[in-house]
Amino acid sequence: MEEKLTKKLDALATRTIDLHNRDYLLTWERSPDELHATLLAADVLRDLYLSGRRTRLFDGGLAVSNFRDNSTRTRFSFASAASLLGLSTQDLDESRSQIAHGETVRETANMISFLSEVIGIRDYIFLGEGHKYMVEVGAALDDGYRAGVLPQRPAVINLQCDLDHPTQSLADLMHLQQVFGSLEALRGRKIAMTWAHSPSYGKPLSVPQGIITLMTRFGMNVVLAHPEGYDLVPDTLELAGKFARQSGGSFAVTHDLAAAFRDAHVVYPKSWAPYRVMQERTRLLRGGENEQLAALEKECLAQNLRCRDWECTEKLMATTRGDRPVIAGEDSRNAKQALYMHCLPADITDVTCKVGEVSASVFERYRLATYREASYKPFIIAAMIVLTRFAKPAEALRTLAAGGGMRRGGDSHPRA
Amino acid sequence: MEEKLTKKLDALATRTIDLHNRDYLLTWERSPDELHATLLAADVLRDLYLSGRRTRLFDGGLAVSNFRDNSTRTRFSFASAASLLGLSTQDLDESRSQIAHGETVRETANMISFLSEVIGIRDYIFLGEGHKYMVEVGAALDDGYRAGVLPQRPAVINLQCDLDHPTQSLADLMHLQQVFGSLEALRGRKIAMTWAHSPSYGKPLSVPQGIITLMTRFGMNVVLAHPEGYDLVPDTLELAGKFARQSGGSFAVTHDLAAAFRDAHVVYPKSWAPYRVMQERTRLLRGGENEQLAALEKECLAQNLRCRDWECTEKLMATTRGDRPVIAGEDSRNAKQALYMHCLPADITDVTCKVGEVSASVFERYRLATYREASYKPFIIAAMIVLTRFAKPAEALRTLAAGGGMRRGGDSHPRA
Amino acid sequence: MEEKLTKKLDALATRTIDLHNRDYLLTWERSPDELHATLLAADVLRDLYLSGRRTRLFDGGLAVSNFRDNSTRTRFSFASAASLLGLSTQDLDESRSQIAHGETVRETANMISFLSEVIGIRDYIFLGEGHKYMVEVGAALDDGYRAGVLPQRPAVINLQCDLDHPTQSLADLMHLQQVFGSLEALRGRKIAMTWAHSPSYGKPLSVPQGIITLMTRFGMNVVLAHPEGYDLVPDTLELAGKFARQSGGSFAVTHDLAAAFRDAHVVYPKSWAPYRVMQERTRLLRGGENEQLAALEKECLAQNLRCRDWECTEKLMATTRGDRPVIAGEDSRNAKQALYMHCLPADITDVTCKVGEVSASVFERYRLATYREASYKPFIIAAMIVLTRFAKPAEALRTLAAGGGMRRGGDSHPRA
Repeated sequence: MEEKLTKKLDALATRTIDLHNRDYLLTWERSPDELHATLLAADVLRDLYLSGRRTRLFDGGLAVSNFRDNSTRTRFSFASAASLLGLSTQDLDESRSQIAHGETVRETANMISFLSEVIGIRDYIFLGEGHKYMVEVGAALDDGYRAGVLPQRPAVINLQCDLDHPTQSLADLMHLQQVFGSLEALRGRKIAMTWAHSPSYGKPLSVPQGIITLMTRFGMNVVLAHPEGYDLVPDTLELAGKFARQSGGSFAVTHDLAAAFRDAHVVYPKSWAPYRVMQERTRLLRGGENEQLAALEKECLAQNLRCRDWECTEKLMATTRGDRPVIAGEDSRNAKQALYMHCLPADITDVTCKVGEVSASVFERYRLATYREASYKPFIIAAMIVLTRFAKPAEALRTLAAGGGMRRGGDSHPRA
Repeated sequence: MEEKLTKKLDALATRTIDLHNRDYLLTWERSPDELHATLLAADVLRDLYLSGRRTRLFDGGLAVSNFRDNSTRTRFSFASAASLLGLSTQDLDESRSQIAHGETVRETANMISFLSEVIGIRDYIFLGEGHKYMVEVGAALDDGYRAGVLPQRPAVINLQCDLDHPTQSLADLMHLQQVFGSLEALRGRKIAMTWAHSPSYGKPLSVPQGIITLMTRFGMNVVLAHPEGYDLVPDTLELAGKFARQSGGSFAVTHDLAAAFRDAHVVYPKSWAPYRVMQERTRLLRGGENEQLAALEKECLAQNLRCRDWECTEKLMATTRGDRPVIAGEDSRNAKQALYMHCLPADITDVTCKVGEVSASVFERYRLATYREASYKPFIIAAMIVLTRFAKPAEALRTLAAGGGMRRGGDSHPRA
Repeated sequence: MEEKLTKKLDALATRTIDLHNRDYLLTWERSPDELHATLLAADVLRDLYLSGRRTRLFDGGLAVSNFRDNSTRTRFSFASAASLLGLSTQDLDESRSQIAHGETVRETANMISFLSEVIGIRDYIFLGEGHKYMVEVGAALDDGYRAGVLPQRPAVINLQCDLDHPTQSLADLMHLQQVFGSLEALRGRKIAMTWAHSPSYGKPLSVPQGIITLMTRFGMNVVLAHPEGYDLVPDTLELAGKFARQSGGSFAVTHDLAAAFRDAHVVYPKSWAPYRVMQERTRLLRGGENEQLAALEKECLAQNLRCRDWECTEKLMATTRGDRPVIAGEDSRNAKQALYMHCLPADITDVTCKVGEVSASVFERYRLATYREASYKPFIIAAMIVLTRFAKPAEALRTLAAGGGMRRGGDSHPRA
């Protein structure tokens, strides 16, 4: 273990990382080295945590969370990462329905940052706004830092925007890395990112967009499948294509669910709203046109219902390929089938709804695997904090590994 | 002091404790050794705190609070215990009116627990639901821990359910132990847990149920007094009877308030709603039958009013027995009378309402004593965390006592 | 730097401070030594923080915040101060519309304080109530501490009441001290605290009252300017006059905005509601007279609008005096003009409203300067905590300076 840790730290030290005093917003803005470094730092933090070591790199300071929606999971992942590193969480509770701009954003960004190390933002409701808002906050922080108003430059971390969901897609990638043994083992594997039926409406696009733009960078064969009309933001398709060409993987779009599942090593069936609907919705929300919003919702749900056969069933799963070791919490059947992934909560047919994204029996087989998939997120967020806040992340982490301090008094291992 | 501390730690080390990686839900599930250990651990933590010593056994990690009602006191007790031990508090803010079951509970329990050490839950609104919910959360945590999804198995701590209120009853017991000098000194003492009039309705049953089932285990003569119809959950009466027989104490139920107070060493006059009403209320709440709920409330308040003479007055107090040293914040008269207890806030006649549970003059004499009673709760909660999270609690606490670290820089004693 | 720090700590050690185990409520209750000590302690904490040193004087304990309004800035300043010193923040979320009195206040004050070091309260909505409430909480804490119910006596810190806003006015004073080089350099300087037009109504009086009562103590020539009718609480004018006479400064009231700006070294144009309106508003709010409240608001806004020329414009700024070094984030023109101050957020004409307190071009020139002004507040709050919670604040701070511990692992300076 100690030797493994040293290896990981050495590998981290060799990466070229241009993240110090910057933000972590979109994975496609990050170099391969930076993505690898994120996974390495997350892995080191997880190793330290699992072995009962103390992981507090900060002795005080704020981790600000700004959730423009209700989010239990991400809230807890962020709070966990903050506690892991020794930061105090403070929630910025803005009115959720308004889009702040200009002076208000510049000012608020500085007012909450005098002793802050990180600002985690989740803002995906308005297509075309979430990412823009995060960039605006980052610029205001640069402004304040340059003028010496801010003693340190807090990092903005994207906890989900309208374009990307990097903490999710990188946690998903870390999960794949663990399941298949390495990042290299993902090369040439087929992952099907597919639309799936849901009885709810307006689900964001950031997960599928995040998956197709990230997994194509690691040589995977990525297939995006959805019914006609359920398009993603066009730019993300272009990025996925470009990345596939660069990495030696592939990227294809299909409207045939069965073809997408066939021989897939990984499936990710998940609902989202069509890009054009999200645009229209933003326009209507902005104009406060409630009647038309209700009509749009009704129309969309009817459209969803016409695609109710887009469900991850046992029959579809039987057409996939396993070719990997079974992980804990999985049915033995799973070894012969694709790894099922979901960002949770899933719409489970006959369990949480009448007709959903996935059948009850498929979900139950992979239930604990999806929990495990989620378990990487706190460490990914913590890694993003370390990479953005420390000029020499490997050295900072090495002090923890070398220090030998334990996280708990007395019998210090949590499983002791 | 140091010698006393060593004695307490040695005593704690000899107790057989089967709480590691388990939950603290009902006192009647816990062995006498475990109850003694809880009091000992609380006492040690309190000694350490009062002497200005540092008490942080954790260097990071979450303490999750899940309050399904508005609770200032318990919220602060829980947050205090978490801060005392070095955990960061994170609130799980669910919609309060819904009862979650099945997949949602299993999933949420794991999603909030990747870096959590403890989950404090307060859920008493629906009779027949609160305890069940906590058991369900615990089972989901076992599930995730066994599968290796959770690096550690957080403890569920009952911060009040429909059946028991262990943090309250154990804090009350610790108060009695301090006032009467020892647990042994409680043997043969009479405690009157009596119903009292309140202008409000729907007060939970967990306090009286917790008191009669706990105090009977320590050889006390427990008298439960209430007007006809104001019954508790039958199982708890049976438990109280069984415990009294085992401990050499006694348990009796009466509808005669004067008889209950006569010669009592301790009185605990407190309102609650009848068991049958709480059952009916649960049925109506579940069905959303608002009209009938309003009718039930009206009927109950009228019934309460017919029992408005169930008030703790000076006249009744004069029939009790003192037989104990006066504690700080008490009137000199108190030495000759019973110790008045309350979980707070009390309905005080002519102060917080017209006709309440206790007269203004009685309450004022014991006001600071009731605050003192409440002051043990943060230490009881902290003790529950230590017993559930450490395989060898005495050794963990000994590292604090031996370490000699102080909680404050510079002049380190808070009363210095 | 080290030598400077030693000098500041030595200076702090010589001050006579009667704040231990007491509250920090109104600057006019504090002696000159205590005010100097507050600035010195804030300065030392800031020096330690800027040099990357650890500043945690507490190893656990609660910092309770009780905000009876929505406040982003103060909430973050308080949380920052708590994190800086090693305390966990816990919010007391009371219903905002009610004024609690008597038993409820006494009890709640104790219930939240068993392991608390500080209670920050913001309560300015009802004129004649906020300060009274804080005094009541303080008395309840004295009561509980004397009886031994509370192991330590938490300090109440006024985060803005109906009379004073000490964390704001002292942060403002610290800003002036930094800009002009020293407190001595403020002697004889003219500061214009002027009313300014706002399209909103009911803004509190505590800022202007805090400024005129504090700056007059440091030999400044304080001019208060407002349209007829926009009076402050009379007592604060008397205090300002008395302090000016004692310190060798001056205090004058005028209804002539131009005269107030002329030759001023510092201008603080900021809206507030007339004293008499706030009184009337309190009476109507208490009586729940919503119709009359709406009428009062309408009348007031009309009155404000008649004074719309009370705006801080370039023309007015051109009549002021500079006579000081330009600070970071300022336009070069600023050296020749007064320092513009504001507690933020400002009503900026054509930016955040049609006609506001200040023109866009003036505000933009001083924008970063106002952020810097705000940046002192977390350190002022932390200083108040240190002075009230430690018998020997200089010694407590010296342990931090001497200890040499760094706040961050690895590369420990935030600007490294």
